[in-house]
Amino acid sequence: MELDASSIQNPIHQVKGKAVEKTTDWIAREEPLEIKVNHGPVENRHTFTLSITMRTPGNDYDLVRGFLFTEGIIRRKEQIKSITYDLNLSPAQQQLNSVLVTLSPDVILDAGQLERHFYTSSSCGICGKTSIEMVKLQSSFFPPTNPKAISKEVIHQLPEILKNEQSTFQQTGGIHAAALLDPTGELISVEEDIGRHNAVDKLVGWALEEGHVPLRNRILFVSGRAGFELVQKAVMAGVTFFVAIGAASSLAIELAEENKMTLIGFLGPEKFNVYTGSDRIL
Amino acid sequence: MELDASSIQNPIHQVKGKAVEKTTDWIAREEPLEIKVNHGPVENRHTFTLSITMRTPGNDYDLVRGFLFTEGIIRRKEQIKSITYDLNLSPAQQQLNSVLVTLSPDVILDAGQLERHFYTSSSCGICGKTSIEMVKLQSSFFPPTNPKAISKEVIHQLPEILKNEQSTFQQTGGIHAAALLDPTGELISVEEDIGRHNAVDKLVGWALEEGHVPLRNRILFVSGRAGFELVQKAVMAGVTFFVAIGAASSLAIELAEENKMTLIGFLGPEKFNVYTGSDRIL
Repeated sequence: MELDASSIQNPIHQVKGKAVEKTTDWIAREEPLEIKVNHGPVENRHTFTLSITMRTPGNDYDLVRGFLFTEGIIRRKEQIKSITYDLNLSPAQQQLNSVLVTLSPDVILDAGQLERHFYTSSSCGICGKTSIEMVKLQSSFFPPTNPKAISKEVIHQLPEILKNEQSTFQQTGGIHAAALLDPTGELISVEEDIGRHNAVDKLVGWALEEGHVPLRNRILFVSGRAGFELVQKAVMAGVTFFVAIGAASSLAIELAEENKMTLIGFLGPEKFNVYTGSDRIL
Repeated sequence: MELDASSIQNPIHQVKGKAVEKTTDWIAREEPLEIKVNHGPVENRHTFTLSITMRTPGNDYDLVRGFLFTEGIIRRKEQIKSITYDLNLSPAQQQLNSVLVTLSPDVILDAGQLERHFYTSSSCGICGKTSIEMVKLQSSFFPPTNPKAISKEVIHQLPEILKNEQSTFQQTGGIHAAALLDPTGELISVEEDIGRHNAVDKLVGWALEEGHVPLRNRILFVSGRAGFELVQKAVMAGVTFFVAIGAASSLAIELAEENKMTLIGFLGPEKFNVYTGSDRIL
């Protein structure tokens, strides 16, 4: 029984100690989204499937915009001429799981870029780099200009702010969130998705469409950990402050350091760890 | 400063309320692993990069075995003729981030299988399905034979068992675990990795090498959530009981139901939810 876009109600047996109760629970929705791109010079256009991602339905166009941007396929929002669901698919319910993006002729999907998306990963956002040297993408927004500092108090407030905004998480307990805030801690936007990379891509895609990219002096706050791939997406979007509830990985710290990003992890009640860029914490 | 394979010590600023302390913390290591396969009929062999995954170094050969198996590239361990680090790479430190697998000539990497790995995902294990219909792989071990039942008490004990075995998690707080147990709750093996898919692949790869696959009447217990891709890997390995600390997704429940797997989530102290196969819980 589908009740809204991001969750469904499902029958379960709930076991408490020796007791078993038949009840229902809210479950986060997970569906594949196929991203097809139409690209090439005017006289020679091609359409192919660039990626399939498991995502929670909702804000799919933002997800696609963000994915194309944080993976370095496009550099400006104007390079997307149109995004539509593929209404030619059957059965009809599959139509909302496939999106066709028309790219402007100046988007050159060269061999390197395509190959980057030709290989898979059991891990994620870095999917599709043809060799280890290609794992790192080049951001348009390096080095950061006019970096501001933020206060410890702003960081301490973040969990409470996010808690109030995570509606699907509160319902299902099974979904990630990414939030964008200004340096005073004012919330700009929040996205939720079963995939933590998707939550960030939805947020960046929305920001790109609204003209907020590069996200200079913005805080990107994520409900999970700070792995390499998420930090890379943040780097591509020009984020200055990356804050995670969970741990940071070795490679994420290395990447944040190289890109002069402030990286914070293990944000708990009244406590956090600063891995890089501590000079920008007041 | 590298101290062991799975974690490093890193300088941090730790903020507690208004106080700031310069200290060090243990960080989970994350490095890319390139998986290159040499395949084809005897007279026409080819080598290409199948995948790059961000993983925690350690048990890399098991990771590769498990990845090839749970992604449906190989169906038997004998189809792997050899696995070695690529000692031709330079600099030398990159050698341990690239693995060359020689497959037997009977492994047919047909267009469908290759295409499945030719597209990327910002989400994971399902990476590389060329169309939405291809998301689901076919397990060799369906339907399950002679399924046993397990007791509630065995499930209740799982968190404590895993807690004692997660050495890198205890050190870094930033790593996933997957454990394999028999129906009486006896621990068979545990793997840890920064990627939850990798932890499962390492476990399945080890089990494959040891002759334990299919994992009939075995419990696969994971520290994170039960998403589609993890449940699919378990299905490919013939797992009967899938237990997650976190939530299950809609598509994971659907897949478990189709494959007659018992799926349990939100395992906490004295409490859990049974999504499918509740008839096998005593």
